[in-house]
Amino acid sequence: MRKIEHIGIAVKDLQASNLIFEKLFGAPAYKEEEVASEGVKTSFFMNGPNKIELLEATNPDSPIAKFLEKKGEGIHHIAFDVEDIVSESERLKNEGFTVLNEIPKKGADNKLVAFLHPKTTNGVLIELCQEIK
Amino acid sequence: MRKIEHIGIAVKDLQASNLIFEKLFGAPAYKEEEVASEGVKTSFFMNGPNKIELLEATNPDSPIAKFLEKKGEGIHHIAFDVEDIVSESERLKNEGFTVLNEIPKKGADNKLVAFLHPKTTNGVLIELCQEIK
Repeated sequence: MRKIEHIGIAVKDLQASNLIFEKLFGAPAYKEEEVASEGVKTSFFMNGPNKIELLEATNPDSPIAKFLEKKGEGIHHIAFDVEDIVSESERLKNEGFTVLNEIPKKGADNKLVAFLHPKTTNGVLIELCQEIK
Repeated sequence: MRKIEHIGIAVKDLQASNLIFEKLFGAPAYKEEEVASEGVKTSFFMNGPNKIELLEATNPDSPIAKFLEKKGEGIHHIAFDVEDIVSESERLKNEGFTVLNEIPKKGADNKLVAFLHPKTTNGVLIELCQEIK
């Protein structure tokens, strides 16, 4: 875990929220990307060494649609940058955390990702992400 | 807004959660601090250029006690590092954000802090913080 790679924020309307976060950071999103496998449209803002990811659901079965229904708009997950996602997942599993997908999957923004179950992390959904080289 | 200074996480039991986050980061909290004016006990973990702050309520009127009652354990706020909190608060107010305390107050970890109301930031409680020199 080398730094906060990004914070993921669930939003109802990506375009409307892009305008809010553009005002917040004083600069627009540097990319938008759809991740069909996760049922999300995303946008990314740079903030120094960190990023903010906005997530809008593209279908009712999307994890983001379910989150919005249950909790409303707000912070959905924290993603930490890791050098080697396989060894870090293994280390955390041995420490007692529940790794939701032991085989990392392709996420947005050119990353391999794995998630830790919030029940083992004080209610916080934690993503590990490794840049694909 | 130069980087994510820290992410604040509301927890029921600071000592129990310290153990969880120590395992997550592979290193213990670098400090614990009580902020009586906010009704919280806090601990801080370093993660590269960023920090994680755990917050436990010290009385039932604490904002953290109310958050835990309403939402349970989880991410409470994102704090961004700013160079000049007064001018940044002014800029954001002019952009349409609601600044909860226009006169910055003393927070944990040697910072001046101000908060943006979540209703103007997609449900995310945002803290601005400036290091006190």
